Amino acid sequence: MGLVLADDVLGRGLQRIQQEVDAAFDAFLPVPQDSRARLVEAMRHAAIGGGKRVRPLLLVTVAEMYGASRVAAVRAGCAVEAIHAYSLVHDDLPCMDDDDLRHGKPTVHKAFDEATAVLAGDSLHALAFELLADNQVSPDPFIRAELVHALASASGHNGMAGGQMMDMLADSAALDLHTVTRLQQLKTGALLGAAVEMGAILGRVQEEGRGHLRAYARDIGLAFQITDDLLDHEGDEAKAGKALRKDAEQGKATFVSLMGPAKAREQARALSDQAVGHLAGHGQEAELLRALAKFVVERDR
Amino acid sequence: MGLVLADDVLGRGLQRIQQEVDAAFDAFLPVPQDSRARLVEAMRHAAIGGGKRVRPLLLVTVAEMYGASRVAAVRAGCAVEAIHAYSLVHDDLPCMDDDDLRHGKPTVHKAFDEATAVLAGDSLHALAFELLADNQVSPDPFIRAELVHALASASGHNGMAGGQMMDMLADSAALDLHTVTRLQQLKTGALLGAAVEMGAILGRVQEEGRGHLRAYARDIGLAFQITDDLLDHEGDEAKAGKALRKDAEQGKATFVSLMGPAKAREQARALSDQAVGHLAGHGQEAELLRALAKFVVERDR
Repeated sequence: MGLVLADDVLGRGLQRIQQEVDAAFDAFLPVPQDSRARLVEAMRHAAIGGGKRVRPLLLVTVAEMYGASRVAAVRAGCAVEAIHAYSLVHDDLPCMDDDDLRHGKPTVHKAFDEATAVLAGDSLHALAFELLADNQVSPDPFIRAELVHALASASGHNGMAGGQMMDMLADSAALDLHTVTRLQQLKTGALLGAAVEMGAILGRVQEEGRGHLRAYARDIGLAFQITDDLLDHEGDEAKAGKALRKDAEQGKATFVSLMGPAKAREQARALSDQAVGHLAGHGQEAELLRALAKFVVERDR
Repeated sequence: MGLVLADDVLGRGLQRIQQEVDAAFDAFLPVPQDSRARLVEAMRHAAIGGGKRVRPLLLVTVAEMYGASRVAAVRAGCAVEAIHAYSLVHDDLPCMDDDDLRHGKPTVHKAFDEATAVLAGDSLHALAFELLADNQVSPDPFIRAELVHALASASGHNGMAGGQMMDMLADSAALDLHTVTRLQQLKTGALLGAAVEMGAILGRVQEEGRGHLRAYARDIGLAFQITDDLLDHEGDEAKAGKALRKDAEQGKATFVSLMGPAKAREQARALSDQAVGHLAGHGQEAELLRALAKFVVERDR
């Protein structure tokens, strides 16, 4: 029963946030009547439809646990998702991972062209911070500035982009498990961690009350990436909506190549359980976070 | 004498801000001891040395006119310059303008590689907002949030990136002077305007007191771009430190192609004079802005 309830909670939670994020991006990005139309169409292609919206769900759930307004939290969730979306557009470019398919649709440089993809990514990047600095996210400018700082520091050279650089150099280097863990903590973990942190900021959780949320975010971040490696190794391309098994072809060190699939799955499940354990001080209001920790390792895409 | 004084003021002002911005980026970007080193080296290549630093000079000068701290203003100036620098790195990419030379050095994708250039641009973009959200820019979070909003809205699809998109499509379209003006107001004007606006924000100038500063920024922005077109038409590649005459080769509509060089120069000078006129209510403290308005149209690179 517990798992069925959790599944129900999560299914409804994901469906709701997906609708809210799509509707919000639709409102943020009206297509202009001049030649910028092409740019905005490309931003919409990247930002609307298809994403799981795990990051906004994390942010909104934590914010609501501490009594913040859902509407404001969805706006902040869109900012995190705009960063995630821009990073996918740029990662898919021919000079990076050279992918043709994303969320079951052509990638932005395939549907438009490379230059438009570069600019659409850049524009989504700027949009993220424009959204956070707007007083509709919070009437308190301290909260707005904190949100900007959390997201900017998680996405730059000391966060996501730094992890992406390490990942690009990973096929040539013989990496050990410690280095792969560090790389993934930056590439994927930093932005997932920022989503949780931003929820805590909106919920006015004091610094000393954030420890268990950070521990939760760290564990699901790592579990998420190990599962990504497992899905890349044994998943279904049609379900994934993108090309798989590129890491192995490139001889890239991953959790699966270093630990083997059985051990990797065991480790992902242990991290998921550990993440749930960090929420022991919470009741029903953290049910969605618990369900998400399970989903992260049990998803099929 | 007036011009000699102005030149002296400007020469010292530019030299000082160039040193300050270079030193600040050097401090912001220590090279890490892991494989992110390559990314940070590329960011340093793009951000340190070579730029005229017109945008930070504008920002710092306006901020100081209204009593703001210079150290804080230099940090905010670095944020604007980080946006400018990232836009040059991405504009120079093979899929965009495909340039090999910038500020007399190889462009980032030439000195490193394309993927590193994409990521270095993205990381400078994030750095800009990380800098502005930090309380070293201002202890007042309202000011930090305002700075973020001004810079983000000027650099995205309704600002610089939107103008760049219009510019990319300009060789195929037969543009009139009105459209070229609008395009350039976005591509170049938005960020110059943001620099002035951010100086006013740091100086706590109320909304109703910013009209003459905005008018000044609008005029020098347009004068700056007309002069860029003139330099592209008749300038010296060695002095410019980049390839010239590409617009004409591509049959792109510019101020020079639409007005002819003589009329374009006349127009740039008239805008420069008009910009100075907007500062009539200021005394000696605006001398640097007056000198800058002259420099913008009289520079040779």
